[in-house]
Amino acid sequence: MKKIMNNPSNIVDEMLQGMIVSHPDLIQRIPETGIIQRKEEKNGKVAIISGGGSGHEPAHAGFVGKGMLSAAICGEVFTSPTPDQILEAIKVSDEGAGVFLVIKNYSGDIMNFEMAQELAEMEGIEVASVVVDDDIAVEDSLYTQGKRGVAGTILVHKILGYAAQQGKSITEIKELSKNLIPNIKSIGLALTGVTTPGSNQPSFVLAEDEIEYGVGIHGEPGYRREKLQTSQNLANELLTKLVNEFGAKEKGRFAVIVNGLGGTPLMEQYVFTNDVQQLLSNRELSVDFYKVGNFMTSLEMQGLSLTLLYLENDFYIEALKAPVTTISW
Amino acid sequence: MKKIMNNPSNIVDEMLQGMIVSHPDLIQRIPETGIIQRKEEKNGKVAIISGGGSGHEPAHAGFVGKGMLSAAICGEVFTSPTPDQILEAIKVSDEGAGVFLVIKNYSGDIMNFEMAQELAEMEGIEVASVVVDDDIAVEDSLYTQGKRGVAGTILVHKILGYAAQQGKSITEIKELSKNLIPNIKSIGLALTGVTTPGSNQPSFVLAEDEIEYGVGIHGEPGYRREKLQTSQNLANELLTKLVNEFGAKEKGRFAVIVNGLGGTPLMEQYVFTNDVQQLLSNRELSVDFYKVGNFMTSLEMQGLSLTLLYLENDFYIEALKAPVTTISW
Repeated sequence: MKKIMNNPSNIVDEMLQGMIVSHPDLIQRIPETGIIQRKEEKNGKVAIISGGGSGHEPAHAGFVGKGMLSAAICGEVFTSPTPDQILEAIKVSDEGAGVFLVIKNYSGDIMNFEMAQELAEMEGIEVASVVVDDDIAVEDSLYTQGKRGVAGTILVHKILGYAAQQGKSITEIKELSKNLIPNIKSIGLALTGVTTPGSNQPSFVLAEDEIEYGVGIHGEPGYRREKLQTSQNLANELLTKLVNEFGAKEKGRFAVIVNGLGGTPLMEQYVFTNDVQQLLSNRELSVDFYKVGNFMTSLEMQGLSLTLLYLENDFYIEALKAPVTTISW
Repeated sequence: MKKIMNNPSNIVDEMLQGMIVSHPDLIQRIPETGIIQRKEEKNGKVAIISGGGSGHEPAHAGFVGKGMLSAAICGEVFTSPTPDQILEAIKVSDEGAGVFLVIKNYSGDIMNFEMAQELAEMEGIEVASVVVDDDIAVEDSLYTQGKRGVAGTILVHKILGYAAQQGKSITEIKELSKNLIPNIKSIGLALTGVTTPGSNQPSFVLAEDEIEYGVGIHGEPGYRREKLQTSQNLANELLTKLVNEFGAKEKGRFAVIVNGLGGTPLMEQYVFTNDVQQLLSNRELSVDFYKVGNFMTSLEMQGLSLTLLYLENDFYIEALKAPVTTISW
């Protein structure tokens, strides 16, 4: 896999520098860390922060900005940031009203974010958190106990970011997050594996006519391989699984993300979206909000994921539609 | 090349339907055409419209909206829209102040847009146009006499869109465009060829350790193949060519686009941006505006292009920084 890079061991550092030079009005980097912080003036509100391994861009740093994340902590490729970096991010983000952590469900992230939370609390900062586990594809995985956290995470950033901006307390945000998480479900598929920088081996290899359903965003295996299908069939497979998972809720209104995994062009994402919309319409399900593009990627992987958010609460859609000043929302 | 699609001959139609269902607040489709029109209320200003073959998403439909394009005409993949569709777009976009066409320099586009312009003028609509030929890589090409039009086109959309929104006349916009075009220069490189939907053959094949400089956005050949280089070397090759082309202007201020060609992840684009910034800084050239991402793509091609806009006129930067309501700017 050819990559545009220099020394693979500097790739995250150089990427973050590239982000900073591109968007000096919006974000800044805490020197010698993987922390990207928004430049907005502090105003005493709860800070929502997130992060994880790099390689999923624009997640998470692309969602730092007014109305979304106060900071993102960017680890090495597919590697959790360390507790000291997360602690540092908590400290620089705190505006006095506490810091709320959005954590994707990977064992390394859970361990490191929880350790940082404890350390911050010992320093007198109020911290709360939520774990996102929206990927319904498989139970337990290479790096996860339970279900993985994937593209639905950006909906958590957006909705909690809006709540914070509205001045909600950390207790209210915790409560909101507890209600929100069960309403978000995702599932993906891959046309290709993914190769980490510096490695010569992809995580897995798919034949020229083969796809895999249910893959993770770090090359974790999915639940079935088969011949490439039409977009309609792919959409039907993913959507049926999601709708079944929602069960009795399936008559409501939804927000939908069609998320490219990095190497799949927008043309294919929109074709797939059209199929999703037709299938939802056949089921008499309505969508109040669509988002299509590359949001939570897996380096250069070809493929996409589908996320449904059940709009149980009107606040969700109000939050999703509110303007933000980030690089990538 | 695996693609997420149904029947390749319907791919543009299905893509456009996917765009419409995703962004019903922003855009609408003129039924049974490839015309995507903004929903903004008409207000008697000049309409800027553009278009070309599909396969370059988000260009051009992603730039339809308040402050940018009034409409985009989307042809079949890598194929100019027909004169009747362009004429229809001119008619539905005209607010009484005339319609300005932004045309990329490909023989088919030139012929069809000019024919539509003549037909519209016969119907009493004032029409003016500009041809974008920012790609300095090669003179004459598979589908072009002179230089090709590539990612710099989106700067033309943005700056002329702002001018129109400010209420400038079609004569003023024509004058602005004549001054703007020579200040925009681009050049690209590819890590892979590109395969049109329904074809089994990529436009060209690069070995697993090979790249090509100067390729076009339809698989047109570039000017040199060589072994994959570091990002620094790639940036140096492209930037040196661009700066030399600017000649005496090279001591000024610039806007820069690092444009992913469809299959190259943001991580690599930002690493490359960091290298571009260092090289510009070494030359004591300053950048007032960066834009990094996939804007003018070539289906799933891996690679990127670099665009420099010489900020000869303060209006350019004012225009670039003005907010718009489009899907993809």
